[in-house]
Amino acid sequence: MADGDDDVPLILTWDNDTNSGLLTDDASERLDENGGGGYDIMNNTTMPNPGLPDPSTQASMQQSWEMNYQEAAIYLQEGENNDKFFTHPQNPRALSAYLFAHNHLFYLMELVTGLLLMMLSLSEAPAVPSLRLDVYVHATLELLALVMVAFELCMKLRWLGLNTFIRHKRTMVKTCVLFIQFIEAIVVLVRQTSHLRVTRALRPIFLVDCRYCGAVRRNLRQIFQSLPPFIDILVLLLFFMVIFAILGFFLFSSNPADLYFNTLENSIVSLFVLLTTANFPDVMMPSYSRNRWSCVFFIVYLSIELYFIMNLLLAVVFDTFNGVEKMKFKSLLLHKRSAIDHAFQLLVRRQRPDGVTLKQFDGLMRHYRPRMSARDRFLTYKALNQSVTDMLSLQDFYKFYEVIGLKWKARRSGEHWFDDLPHTAFLIFKGINLLVKSKTFQYAMYIVVAVNGIWILVETTVWNSDVSWSRFVPWSYVVFLTIYGVEVMLKITGLGPLAYFSSGWNLFDFSVTVLAFLGLIALAFNMEPFYFIVVLRPLQLLRLFKIKQRYRNVLDTMFELFPRMASLGLTLIIFYYSFAIVGMEFFADVVYPNCCNTSTVADAYRQINVTIGNRTVLQEGYYYLNNFNNILSSFVTLFELTVVNNWYITMEGVTSQTTHWSRLFFMTFYIVTMVVMTIIVAFILDAFVFRMNYSRKNKQEEALEDPEGEKGIVFEAEVSRAEALQTLEFYKHTPANSSLSSLHQVCVLMERSGHSSVVFLGRRSRTKSDLSMKMYQEEIEEWYAEYSRGNLPHLGESPESDLDCPVITQHSTN
Amino acid sequence: MADGDDDVPLILTWDNDTNSGLLTDDASERLDENGGGGYDIMNNTTMPNPGLPDPSTQASMQQSWEMNYQEAAIYLQEGENNDKFFTHPQNPRALSAYLFAHNHLFYLMELVTGLLLMMLSLSEAPAVPSLRLDVYVHATLELLALVMVAFELCMKLRWLGLNTFIRHKRTMVKTCVLFIQFIEAIVVLVRQTSHLRVTRALRPIFLVDCRYCGAVRRNLRQIFQSLPPFIDILVLLLFFMVIFAILGFFLFSSNPADLYFNTLENSIVSLFVLLTTANFPDVMMPSYSRNRWSCVFFIVYLSIELYFIMNLLLAVVFDTFNGVEKMKFKSLLLHKRSAIDHAFQLLVRRQRPDGVTLKQFDGLMRHYRPRMSARDRFLTYKALNQSVTDMLSLQDFYKFYEVIGLKWKARRSGEHWFDDLPHTAFLIFKGINLLVKSKTFQYAMYIVVAVNGIWILVETTVWNSDVSWSRFVPWSYVVFLTIYGVEVMLKITGLGPLAYFSSGWNLFDFSVTVLAFLGLIALAFNMEPFYFIVVLRPLQLLRLFKIKQRYRNVLDTMFELFPRMASLGLTLIIFYYSFAIVGMEFFADVVYPNCCNTSTVADAYRQINVTIGNRTVLQEGYYYLNNFNNILSSFVTLFELTVVNNWYITMEGVTSQTTHWSRLFFMTFYIVTMVVMTIIVAFILDAFVFRMNYSRKNKQEEALEDPEGEKGIVFEAEVSRAEALQTLEFYKHTPANSSLSSLHQVCVLMERSGHSSVVFLGRRSRTKSDLSMKMYQEEIEEWYAEYSRGNLPHLGESPESDLDCPVITQHSTN
Repeated sequence: MADGDDDVPLILTWDNDTNSGLLTDDASERLDENGGGGYDIMNNTTMPNPGLPDPSTQASMQQSWEMNYQEAAIYLQEGENNDKFFTHPQNPRALSAYLFAHNHLFYLMELVTGLLLMMLSLSEAPAVPSLRLDVYVHATLELLALVMVAFELCMKLRWLGLNTFIRHKRTMVKTCVLFIQFIEAIVVLVRQTSHLRVTRALRPIFLVDCRYCGAVRRNLRQIFQSLPPFIDILVLLLFFMVIFAILGFFLFSSNPADLYFNTLENSIVSLFVLLTTANFPDVMMPSYSRNRWSCVFFIVYLSIELYFIMNLLLAVVFDTFNGVEKMKFKSLLLHKRSAIDHAFQLLVRRQRPDGVTLKQFDGLMRHYRPRMSARDRFLTYKALNQSVTDMLSLQDFYKFYEVIGLKWKARRSGEHWFDDLPHTAFLIFKGINLLVKSKTFQYAMYIVVAVNGIWILVETTVWNSDVSWSRFVPWSYVVFLTIYGVEVMLKITGLGPLAYFSSGWNLFDFSVTVLAFLGLIALAFNMEPFYFIVVLRPLQLLRLFKIKQRYRNVLDTMFELFPRMASLGLTLIIFYYSFAIVGMEFFADVVYPNCCNTSTVADAYRQINVTIGNRTVLQEGYYYLNNFNNILSSFVTLFELTVVNNWYITMEGVTSQTTHWSRLFFMTFYIVTMVVMTIIVAFILDAFVFRMNYSRKNKQEEALEDPEGEKGIVFEAEVSRAEALQTLEFYKHTPANSSLSSLHQVCVLMERSGHSSVVFLGRRSRTKSDLSMKMYQEEIEEWYAEYSRGNLPHLGESPESDLDCPVITQHSTN
Repeated sequence: MADGDDDVPLILTWDNDTNSGLLTDDASERLDENGGGGYDIMNNTTMPNPGLPDPSTQASMQQSWEMNYQEAAIYLQEGENNDKFFTHPQNPRALSAYLFAHNHLFYLMELVTGLLLMMLSLSEAPAVPSLRLDVYVHATLELLALVMVAFELCMKLRWLGLNTFIRHKRTMVKTCVLFIQFIEAIVVLVRQTSHLRVTRALRPIFLVDCRYCGAVRRNLRQIFQSLPPFIDILVLLLFFMVIFAILGFFLFSSNPADLYFNTLENSIVSLFVLLTTANFPDVMMPSYSRNRWSCVFFIVYLSIELYFIMNLLLAVVFDTFNGVEKMKFKSLLLHKRSAIDHAFQLLVRRQRPDGVTLKQFDGLMRHYRPRMSARDRFLTYKALNQSVTDMLSLQDFYKFYEVIGLKWKARRSGEHWFDDLPHTAFLIFKGINLLVKSKTFQYAMYIVVAVNGIWILVETTVWNSDVSWSRFVPWSYVVFLTIYGVEVMLKITGLGPLAYFSSGWNLFDFSVTVLAFLGLIALAFNMEPFYFIVVLRPLQLLRLFKIKQRYRNVLDTMFELFPRMASLGLTLIIFYYSFAIVGMEFFADVVYPNCCNTSTVADAYRQINVTIGNRTVLQEGYYYLNNFNNILSSFVTLFELTVVNNWYITMEGVTSQTTHWSRLFFMTFYIVTMVVMTIIVAFILDAFVFRMNYSRKNKQEEALEDPEGEKGIVFEAEVSRAEALQTLEFYKHTPANSSLSSLHQVCVLMERSGHSSVVFLGRRSRTKSDLSMKMYQEEIEEWYAEYSRGNLPHLGESPESDLDCPVITQHSTN
């Protein structure tokens, strides 16, 4: 092979014969723009350009390269999204389907379809009154949504191929559910009336499967992984419950006043409810009033079940959770590394199979991040390139995912935003800057906030509720608001808007103050619906918690946990939805005022005038409001069941109107929420303890690394003028879709400042993954060693079980 | 100094001049018994006995040695009990007081006094009816007990000296409380009537201070150490509560039907109760029935407070707990090491300051464990002596606490207990042994247990409660009991009683079976009070959980946790006691049937005929039973408050009869139990996760170390015949209080078996400390290095802050 063949890729994707369709057209177009000789900037310096080869060879070469770029980008995307490699597109037709199904428009369509399907239950009978739709309307809407889902599935089939499609479990389940829903929707449309459609409870599957709900999917997987040990302890729990139920039945069934233990079934139900602490001490009282020692039974039961086994449950789940989190991190890490390995192989040239040049990297990035500017692509390359050679080695390339999210900015020469202003202005702003940074100012503000807090409390205490409250603007409100407004303004001018808004606390201050202003305006113009904004005033008090280090830690952790908490909340809502549908199908309209006079909880549903002694009062039991009459009511009812206080009133009410099998629904719901809640607790515990350990472990290190208290990951890249010009030249010869203005600016900047080089800083916020990287540092080395030896451990159900057998068929030409 | 002075201790305790009183008498007595020349067995072999020195020197020497043994034993005791060294007795008078105050009789006296004082509240007004005593009786009893406490304190004063006494915080608090109680008891005796005696709530201090309650003291310390972060988060919690209370007041106070938010105080109380999930959804219902969107307020509140901040609370406590546990372990470890260092210095001879001979070790052990047999003392010495020399080096001696608890037994030559029986009997027993060890037998038993379980369930379901149950012995009961009885007998004979009872599971089987037999006998003889034993039958089913590994793990952990759980329970009871006293002083006899008709919880206290529609029913609200009328009722009431369901009914009932300040009592109690409960959860989590981590970490190691699955620590010591005889000879010359029969036996055993040596195995069960030792292996080395460099870190409030400045004044004679 000649030296001139240097630009030939090591591996060619797919066979050149089958290389038709979308990709080829695209590639040849680019080729035209690019003209003949690709200008290889990096290569230029190391070896002489061997002259222009035959144009047709050149064209097919360029085409091969484009295909390789595309495929490498897909690999990297799969690594990022944790997609299994066996779903990798295997031929150009699959590729086009893959590209179609992997963009935000398509994702959005998925999301909207999933949401639409779920929202339909607002309008289907039993509907929320104001949103009721006729049967043919909502059935047609449903059919429409289902057709959309079918279309999405077809695209997936086209991309995956039939074999992979069938092997992909989630997709198969989705297909089956789709099929059933389709038939049911048609039946509804034909009969013009809804039948018992419990399968609607499966609708969340369509939502969960969409790309944007990845976090929810991960949560669900984690929940399922924690299930086996959970179920084991649950069995132990239920076992003790049954033993105590038998015991309780024998001990208390002789008491005719004790309705809680008169049959074995009641006995079990009573103890189940007692486990949730919901009917205590009621359940004890009849026997307690007969024999004071009977309390021992209940105390022993609660001590064993509630205070021991329930905690054991948490411990077991927490322990599993810990392991699962680590395993997940490991498998993700190795998956990413494998993706990088694949991509690297596609990017190297046959001649120099140990490095990637800027040209190839740039080609990759054009596919991977089409909207990234040429400057940022170049800077990313510079950040990756840590070796002395001017190519990226595999080791350099492994940092790809760490570097890809960086936001690049030239390092500022000055400290403040107002450094370039005229002297007088500078002095004024400098003064403000010093003022807002001073301790005195801070503590003065704390005092103002504290006084404001006390003021609000006093004001509320002496409040006369006869005065229509929304008409009334106390003067203190205006005074404090003015102070806060002035503070915000001073801070923004003193620190500069960028520095100001980069702190979460400042953002919080700002939004609370702005909200308060809006509230004031709403009051002034008597806009009733916005009056609630005013009562958010006390939120300002939250600023007081900044004073103490621990609160800052805790609240920072809180903010960091928030996204994950939200996704857990969403997961819970998915479960709520399914239970709400089942509840509505079976229990809609079964409870109403005075419905349950034969049950033990009649009082809670009673709405009647009763005579006590010689007075007549309206006895209002509100519990008929906790019903399954529409999806919104169902959600509220389910939330009440989650909190578990008095949930048995709802259960017994419904049971008395239906059969006693209804209890199964409520008990199952309790156990499911218990699982999710335990996971949430385990998650918070894990995240918090992890973060505390981390900050303890890295206290000194951190202080060294980040003297300015910078939180986040910072990379540096120095660009000399010669380099910048050379790069600019290089980009001028590459396809036109790269925006060069940013690169031009760099040159202009250097020209203006007179420096021969500019240092760029790339920043991103620190993620859990970064923390884990540091925490497991030593183990990670072992994992990598294991991985590169190729004897990957079996990672259970995780996608990486397919790591070392990529399905893609690769062969080299020549 | 001559070679003959070899037996001179390196350090002499106290001045010989002050060396009078108890110790000296004792020492000279021993000296007389011992005769002239101490026979130094170990020394014998290394250097010639230099002949008898001057008898008087010898006597004073012996006396010095005895004193040193005594003091070394005290140091080791202090190390074991984690007593601070600054309370070390500093002169012979202090020593006699120390010895008086450090034996089980004295400890028992402390315990009995403490218990007596606490039990008095059963008889003081408001007393448990059947235990009521006249004022002069219980006041006299109290005075008596207080005099006992005063006597104990005097002994302590004598031992510690005034200076140390005042510095010792716990003792000072105790003294103050004693003083107050004394005055109050006298006042009660003079006035012949009890006044408001809230100080009785401090009585548990006397119990907690006694030696046997060390675990409770440690728990209390741990709770106090976890308090600062706990309180921080609690403040955050209360802050959000107040914000939401203000918001709720503004939003809902306009609704006349909503009694929960009509004043700011009610608003705060309602949200406090809601935080405990106790009045949900009741508190939401009035506003929910008016406007369905008001549920958002409650959902947001509960999500933030209950599901986020409360979990954060657990996380923070768990995190602190983790750190505290490790710190505690570290300080204990170093304290022990320091104690060993002190003791070692007192035991070495001037000539050879790097080793302790058997003679010195034996002298120490006679003081440290007076009841240990001579054989065991010798074996302990052998177990410690790992070096080639025949003296204990300091490194050997550091293992003291690991070795001291071992139970020694000669290694059996045979496998089974019946190996020595005649052949026929051997074959029979061997058959039984094989049978009970076979899988088939085990699974057959599981099936029997399962069938029994199903049987019990069916029997209970078809139970006719009209039949007087205690008269009725079902035949199935007899059948299953027979099977269990036969199984127990087979196992005992097959495995031998020792092997059988060494397993916790077998012990459990045995006790359940024996209980069931007792129940049967009780039934046969119609002994009513024992009928409850019969209903314990289902406990047999617990055996089914042996099948699965995870259950074995969990249940083993459960048993391991039990002692610590019990001490935590005791700690809770201490808190209960104080709150019960305060409750009784303020709320005795305030609730009774129909007491609270003006309150919102009137229904729960009502006992009246009401007319509903056209029927008349007895409406029985049992809550008047939850009162503070005597200490037992108070405990039950407090347990109900701990479970927190419907606790506000008790609170509101009491509040409506007293002032609304009473709520402070209930809320404080809630927060205190929350602290203790959170600690319990953190403890279970910590213990469980620790154990899981440990077993994961040591899975392979363990398999190697303990091929037979032995759980526990095993030490080996081989004794040759010559050694045994020599030792016997040596002991014949040492003071008579050592029992030599065990040593004789060893010689006889060797004679009989014909072996020239016997291997003894010392076993003890594994403790948390052993696990910690393994877990923190690497860190322990660091700690030791730190310790030996002398730059001990400041360990906070822990006793080891005094480690490197022993108060004892030591000087050497000569």
